[in-house]
Amino acid sequence: MGNDRISVYRKEHFNAAHRLNNAMLSVEENKAVFGKCNNENFHGHNYELIIKVTGILDPLTGYLIDMKILSDIIKEEIIERFDHKNLNLDVIEFKDLNPTAENIAIVIHKILRAKIETKYELKIILYETERNYVEYPV
Amino acid sequence: MGNDRISVYRKEHFNAAHRLNNAMLSVEENKAVFGKCNNENFHGHNYELIIKVTGILDPLTGYLIDMKILSDIIKEEIIERFDHKNLNLDVIEFKDLNPTAENIAIVIHKILRAKIETKYELKIILYETERNYVEYPV
Amino acid sequence: MGNDRISVYRKEHFNAAHRLNNAMLSVEENKAVFGKCNNENFHGHNYELIIKVTGILDPLTGYLIDMKILSDIIKEEIIERFDHKNLNLDVIEFKDLNPTAENIAIVIHKILRAKIETKYELKIILYETERNYVEYPV
Amino acid sequence: MGNDRISVYRKEHFNAAHRLNNAMLSVEENKAVFGKCNNENFHGHNYELIIKVTGILDPLTGYLIDMKILSDIIKEEIIERFDHKNLNLDVIEFKDLNPTAENIAIVIHKILRAKIETKYELKIILYETERNYVEYPV
Amino acid sequence: MGNDRISVYRKEHFNAAHRLNNAMLSVEENKAVFGKCNNENFHGHNYELIIKVTGILDPLTGYLIDMKILSDIIKEEIIERFDHKNLNLDVIEFKDLNPTAENIAIVIHKILRAKIETKYELKIILYETERNYVEYPV
Amino acid sequence: MGNDRISVYRKEHFNAAHRLNNAMLSVEENKAVFGKCNNENFHGHNYELIIKVTGILDPLTGYLIDMKILSDIIKEEIIERFDHKNLNLDVIEFKDLNPTAENIAIVIHKILRAKIETKYELKIILYETERNYVEYPV
Repeated sequence: MGNDRISVYRKEHFNAAHRLNNAMLSVEENKAVFGKCNNENFHGHNYELIIKVTGILDPLTGYLIDMKILSDIIKEEIIERFDHKNLNLDVIEFKDLNPTAENIAIVIHKILRAKIETKYELKIILYETERNYVEYPV
Repeated sequence: MGNDRISVYRKEHFNAAHRLNNAMLSVEENKAVFGKCNNENFHGHNYELIIKVTGILDPLTGYLIDMKILSDIIKEEIIERFDHKNLNLDVIEFKDLNPTAENIAIVIHKILRAKIETKYELKIILYETERNYVEYPV
Repeated sequence: MGNDRISVYRKEHFNAAHRLNNAMLSVEENKAVFGKCNNENFHGHNYELIIKVTGILDPLTGYLIDMKILSDIIKEEIIERFDHKNLNLDVIEFKDLNPTAENIAIVIHKILRAKIETKYELKIILYETERNYVEYPV
Repeated sequence: MGNDRISVYRKEHFNAAHRLNNAMLSVEENKAVFGKCNNENFHGHNYELIIKVTGILDPLTGYLIDMKILSDIIKEEIIERFDHKNLNLDVIEFKDLNPTAENIAIVIHKILRAKIETKYELKIILYETERNYVEYPV
Repeated sequence: MGNDRISVYRKEHFNAAHRLNNAMLSVEENKAVFGKCNNENFHGHNYELIIKVTGILDPLTGYLIDMKILSDIIKEEIIERFDHKNLNLDVIEFKDLNPTAENIAIVIHKILRAKIETKYELKIILYETERNYVEYPV
Repeated sequence: MGNDRISVYRKEHFNAAHRLNNAMLSVEENKAVFGKCNNENFHGHNYELIIKVTGILDPLTGYLIDMKILSDIIKEEIIERFDHKNLNLDVIEFKDLNPTAENIAIVIHKILRAKIETKYELKIILYETERNYVEYPV
C-alpha cells in the first residue's frame, strides 16, 4: 500500500463579518444585485472551511500529510487572519474584491496553494451557511 | 479572478410519502424486491435535496449564479410540487415510474435542467435518510 | 458513586407517512387548520425519536439501564410498529387520533411507560423535522 | 389526551454582525474583557434560534400551538429585524446593550413574550456557534 | 437586565479508548453484562462533552461566565487528561471505577465542580455516540 | 431512464480503539511522528464509514443496487470485524500495517472490492472525527 493516491479532508471554522458590494457598481445597482447582503453596516457568518488534499500515501507513516501540520498551516494562514474579522475592512485581499463565498474560497486557495507542497492537489470547500456552500477549483 | 470554474451548492428539503412498487412486477415480486418499502399504505421521508451548479465565475458580481434566483427556481419547480405530497399519487412524473431515491434524483435533474441555463453544469444529491443518499449524474 | 440520579438518552428513528385530519371537523375546517399537512394522499417524515430515562445509577454495572435492553424495547414496541408504516392507516392508536407530533409523542410515551420499570422516569423527544420537535411530558 | 402539558420547539436562524463592547468601560478594559470579540470592525455569526413553547395540548387539533403561526411570529418579530443586520448598529435594542449571546437571548425572549399568549411558557435557546449556546430563562 | 438567571453551554470533545469491566464480577459475568463492550483489548469513542453552567448574568459584561475561561478550565482539567488516552489505564479516576458513560460524566462533574465557583450550577452532558448520551446531575 | 449512471451512498459506523505506530521506526521516531496518537495504551474513535457505489441504474427496480444487500455486506465484512475492536490487536489486516485513517480506508476498500460485483465502482469515505476524514480511491 505505497503508491496509492488518496484524499484527506480537514475541517476548520472562522466567524467573520462581511458585506457584498462592488465599487464599480452604483449604490442602486449594488442594492439590486446583492439585496440584504449589501447592508452597509455588514452582517456575518460562521464559515465552515474544508481543505481537501490529494496525493500519494507515504508508506512509512501511513499518512498522506500530517494533519497536525496541515491544521497548523490553515490556522496560521487563514484562521488567524479571517476569524473574528471584518472581511471587507480587515483582510487585505478583499480591499478591492467582493467577499462572496466564491471569492473567499478562491482567495483561501491562493493563500494555501503557496504554502502546501506542489506534489499535493488542493481543493477548498467553504460553507457560508448550512444551506449555501462552494467548492474551488473544480 | 474572472474565468475561474467553480461549483456552488444549495440545500433545500421536502417531506413526502411514497411506496416502492413496479406495476410490471407481480404483487409477490414487488414484496420480495422492495420489502417494507412496498407497504401499500405508503411511508415517508424528510428528503434533503442538494443542487450543485458548476460554471465560470461572474467577475462583476463575484457570484457563479445568484443563490436567491437558484433557490426560487428549486422552490417553484420542485418544492411546490413535491413537498407534503404523495409522490406516487400527486406527482405526475411518478405515475408510471417507481419513486426510488435514484429515480427521484433523475426526475429532479430533468425538471431543473430545463430551467437552468445550459452554460451551467447541474448535479443532484438527494438524501432519503441520513444514511442513504444518491448523486446524479456522475 | 452509587445513589446518584442520572439521565440517559437513546436515539432511534423511523420513517412513516401520515396526514393531519380530525374526523370531528368538516373537510373545509380540516383544510383551514392543517393546510398542506391535510393532503388526503398523505405525506411523510423521517422521525427522530429520543427516549430519556432518569433514575438511580446501578453501582454494580455503572449503568442506569442497559442501553441494549432499552434499545430492544424501543425497537420491538415502536420501531417495528411505526417504521415504514402509514400512521393513520397502519397504527391502531391513530385510528381515531390525529397523528400530530404531539400526539405521536404521547402515544409513544404511553406504550413505553407500560414496558419500562416504574422506578425509571420516562420522557419522549420526537423530531418531526430538523426544525420542529416536541417533548412529553414536561 | 386532552389536558396534557407538552413542549414544542421551533428552530429558525439568522446571520448577523456584532461586536462586544460596553460603553461604560474604557477601550483598554473592553479589549481586555472581550478580546477578539471586541474588534471595532465587527465579526459575525450564523445564529441558530430555538423557541420552546410549553402548555396544554389542544385536543381538537392535537397541536399545542400552530407551528406555522409560531414560525410566522418569529419571522416577523425577530428574523426580519435581526437577519443580515449589524446587531450593534441596526437593532435598536442593542443601542446601549452589549450583544452577547446571553443578552440577545434575553432581548428575543422579551420581544416574543409580548406576542405569544400568556397561557404558554416561553424559553429561548440561542446557538452563537455550534460549540457555544445559551438558554433563557432557566 | 441584571439579575436574570441564565444558562450557557460549552461543547468540547475528546477521543479515548475504554472497556467496560467490573473487577468485582467474574470474567463470565462481565462478558454477560457488558457484551462486546467488555473486549479485553479495548474499543473507543469520540466523546462529545457539553458543560452547562447556570447562574446570574453579569450586567457589566453581559456574560454569565467568560466562555474562554470556561473552555480553558475544561481543556486543562479534562481534555488534557482524557484525550487520546485509555480511560481504564491512563486516567487515575477509573483505576477502580468502570468507565461507563454514566461514570465518566460523574467523574467529570466532580473534577470541574472543584474548579468552578460555587455560585454557578454545573451540569454535564456526555455523548458516547450520536445515539447514546447521558446527563448528570438531574 | 434505463442506462443512466448514478451513485448511491450508504453510511454505517463502528467504534474502535487504535494507536499509530510503525514497527520499522524507533520508539523515539514513532513518538515524534505520531505524537499523542502513539499512546501505547491506545485511544479510540467513532468511525463514520460511507460506501459510494457507482454504476448503471436497473430500470426494473429503479435501484442501482439493493441498499439492504449493500448494508448487509458492509455489516458482515466490516462492522462485525471492526466494531468494538482494537484495530491493532484484533483485526488481522493491521497486524503489520499502521491503522491510520488512510490505511483503514484502503483496507476496507480491498475487503469490499472482493465482495461487490465488478460492474460497480466503489469508493470509501471514512470519518475518523467530524473534522478529519479521508477518501479512497480518488
